[in-house]
Amino acid sequence: MKLKAKDMDISSGGPLIAVLNHKDAAMLDLHVMDRIKISKGKKIETVVVDIAQNGSIIRQGKIGLFDEVVESLNLRNNDNVEIAIARKPLSLDYIKKKLDGQSLSKEEIDQIVWDIVHNKLSQVELAYFVAACYTNVMSTAETILLTKSMVRHGDTLRLNKYPVIDKHSIGGIPGNRTTLIIVPIMAAAGYAMPKTSSRSIKSPAGTADTMEVLADVVFPIKKMKEIILKTNGCIIWGGALNLAPADDKIIAVERPLEIDAESQLLASIMAKKHSVSSTHILIDIPSGKDAKVKNRVGAIKLKKEFEKIGSKLRKHIKVLITDGRQPIGNGIGPALEARDVLWLLKRDPRRPIDLEKKCIVMCAEIFRMLGVKNGYRKALDILDSGKAYNKMIEIIKAQKGKETAAEDIKIGKYCRDIVSAKSGKVFDIDNLIISRVARIAGAPHDKGAGLYLYKHIGDKVKKGERLFTIYSESEHEFEYAKDFAKENNGFMVR
Amino acid sequence: MKLKAKDMDISSGGPLIAVLNHKDAAMLDLHVMDRIKISKGKKIETVVVDIAQNGSIIRQGKIGLFDEVVESLNLRNNDNVEIAIARKPLSLDYIKKKLDGQSLSKEEIDQIVWDIVHNKLSQVELAYFVAACYTNVMSTAETILLTKSMVRHGDTLRLNKYPVIDKHSIGGIPGNRTTLIIVPIMAAAGYAMPKTSSRSIKSPAGTADTMEVLADVVFPIKKMKEIILKTNGCIIWGGALNLAPADDKIIAVERPLEIDAESQLLASIMAKKHSVSSTHILIDIPSGKDAKVKNRVGAIKLKKEFEKIGSKLRKHIKVLITDGRQPIGNGIGPALEARDVLWLLKRDPRRPIDLEKKCIVMCAEIFRMLGVKNGYRKALDILDSGKAYNKMIEIIKAQKGKETAAEDIKIGKYCRDIVSAKSGKVFDIDNLIISRVARIAGAPHDKGAGLYLYKHIGDKVKKGERLFTIYSESEHEFEYAKDFAKENNGFMVR
Repeated sequence: MKLKAKDMDISSGGPLIAVLNHKDAAMLDLHVMDRIKISKGKKIETVVVDIAQNGSIIRQGKIGLFDEVVESLNLRNNDNVEIAIARKPLSLDYIKKKLDGQSLSKEEIDQIVWDIVHNKLSQVELAYFVAACYTNVMSTAETILLTKSMVRHGDTLRLNKYPVIDKHSIGGIPGNRTTLIIVPIMAAAGYAMPKTSSRSIKSPAGTADTMEVLADVVFPIKKMKEIILKTNGCIIWGGALNLAPADDKIIAVERPLEIDAESQLLASIMAKKHSVSSTHILIDIPSGKDAKVKNRVGAIKLKKEFEKIGSKLRKHIKVLITDGRQPIGNGIGPALEARDVLWLLKRDPRRPIDLEKKCIVMCAEIFRMLGVKNGYRKALDILDSGKAYNKMIEIIKAQKGKETAAEDIKIGKYCRDIVSAKSGKVFDIDNLIISRVARIAGAPHDKGAGLYLYKHIGDKVKKGERLFTIYSESEHEFEYAKDFAKENNGFMVR
Repeated sequence: MKLKAKDMDISSGGPLIAVLNHKDAAMLDLHVMDRIKISKGKKIETVVVDIAQNGSIIRQGKIGLFDEVVESLNLRNNDNVEIAIARKPLSLDYIKKKLDGQSLSKEEIDQIVWDIVHNKLSQVELAYFVAACYTNVMSTAETILLTKSMVRHGDTLRLNKYPVIDKHSIGGIPGNRTTLIIVPIMAAAGYAMPKTSSRSIKSPAGTADTMEVLADVVFPIKKMKEIILKTNGCIIWGGALNLAPADDKIIAVERPLEIDAESQLLASIMAKKHSVSSTHILIDIPSGKDAKVKNRVGAIKLKKEFEKIGSKLRKHIKVLITDGRQPIGNGIGPALEARDVLWLLKRDPRRPIDLEKKCIVMCAEIFRMLGVKNGYRKALDILDSGKAYNKMIEIIKAQKGKETAAEDIKIGKYCRDIVSAKSGKVFDIDNLIISRVARIAGAPHDKGAGLYLYKHIGDKVKKGERLFTIYSESEHEFEYAKDFAKENNGFMVR
């Protein structure tokens, strides 16, 4: 059937979608969520069908196209296209199979991942895949197949080096910028550490957001390789690279129910590491009531899964379960965290000691994996000697940044102290409230927004003493954040 | 936050959706699939958030609204609205709970159904509910709660009569127009039978599509009551009534994976019956490789579930497992089926004997449930005496139709015989292919389109002898159908 293209000027956010008039759809016996092939010249794309009951949106003889389809086929308004019925993706049968509790083969998992990467599945179909893997938990064998498949359907970095160091912290803890300390320490010690990091999704800053205060973080994979070969390290935004792209699409449909399919979490993390050819990987699982992993039992179970999968993928893996009850470091928000990092590397007395200790412990574990003795001492020496700071500046320069003094980092000009309503001891801090205040203040999209903590759990506080300061770049957001913190500042004092 | 409304002129097909500019969304810390409250004056509606990354679609300060939201709040372009963060629907927690394998309480099921009926859930969220009920099958107690809840959140018909007869055939068999025979027989016997039927989804005709050839099928519930009080029977499209509306929305997201969550199927059928206060219900489960129920084991399991739920709902239920290997009757498509029905009621020699036998057996079972003896004989007498025909004409007239001779029913003018390529015996007919040919020929949207079968399983056929005739109302669709049938006519002869 021949139809005229109509650019709908809407993005679906992934899936390839076309809208048919209901009469044209009936003629081909098509229903919502069926598939058609659209061809223009030699270009062909399979897309999901939506149907307009209302002729005023798509008239008969027209086909409405979402941005993803327009781009893929390079179409313009009123271009003639040919459409034909297409089979449903094979992967729908496999998703159904998993939902029915059966195991999937290498070929079946591979087909699902391929279809995800190529936007062949609708969000509803993807949700069924997530639900299937959540209720019928993937076996270790399946998780490994999923990991390898996600790597295969994406770009990879080959360094021809051994060892290649990597680390990952499971999320949910404000601050916690360990990467920005550990990468320069390990790189200064002579090890390759091709670190990719994420931007914030629900937090006030991801590692990539914070690094971006000091340098660029968006590079193609070829440039990433150059940076590592030159400096041993890098801290680059993973989202701009095409490493295991299926993963990001899966995560998007997990949000509404806040589902963390364990097999998917494992595959997701290991795929990113495998894509950059890491050989020695340290995993940090913060455990705490507001963290992603709520308690020690869950943390230990996850630790074992990581170790099992790591060994099957022939990686050296070490898993640390850390304290996830409260923010790590004092600054929350990209610029405030970057300032903490520079103070720490510069050995400034204002540096956050909790963050420093955690990073040294983590480096010590990495050294132990590598068979290097006295790792704790060694990491501390690299910090104290200024080698870590110098290495960080080297990496920053390789990533098109320049050396900046901590004091010159621009922090939001609107600020307000939040003080304690009573005297006592801080016995709990709500990570979610702290994150929320920082986000409403403008983090991470305004780099200088966020908050700076003066107190941690166990600290004594007097009535009227500062708990934290809110920073904003715009007055409007500042007002919102102040109002929110007035209702609830996240600190429990007694 | 105050924003200006922009009518997007797109329908979501159910869920209430609004699109924010990414900067406005960031200010309220909102993500895709979060919820906001939109208010205009005293009207408030909670909707799902979508985010436009591209400022050309929704500029900052604007809010794009799908048709469902525009209608619900009665908005116009550039109206000022106020938005605020809203909590996620409580039902998301309950859906997660079910996905985690736990049972749901009355209140939890009720909240989910309420949210579905009021379009509060996105399709992805609804898919998680379907997946949850599919993998963690609902208990009988939960299914009954779901049934009652779907009834409660919809309209109901109260007749103050006893008994009230009903029937339901599980789908998947072309033809099979038993309702149009059984309703006039039972109504002529003096029993109330307030039958609601569906239109076709994937088949060439639903009962409502076929009845529509003879009379109107769209009536409000008040008029439905009048028709039944006058004639004892009716055959009305259920979709125009608001009986258990949650059901239709659930079915929509089941399609991509062709999921039939058994608990949902049971609740769906029983809710429609419960909504019209039926007391004696006959369920017909055709079993066959192309039918919805593939084999006898599955059919028996389903039969038991129906009986269990029926008794808990204090209904008299009888379940028949019937032959679902091939089409029932000769005409396939609304007009061709209506002609079969009139021939059958008029005792015309051209009437389909397989359909007649099945209907008499079903009536006999209904009579047995009612404690009436010799039901088979009784049903046949009502047919042979012309009482069933006269009752059907009475119902047709009450539904604003008029008496029509079978020969005067308009059948598509384009026709082509499909003949056997060899001599032998018909040993199988593929229901799916027969349906597909009829649909491509134009059924059900062109009432006169479809096909007419001359052979059934077990019949002898000579090479070149007619298997069926295709009928179309338009040349265009006729060509498509002919081409398709040339490839595969669905008949297996050996």
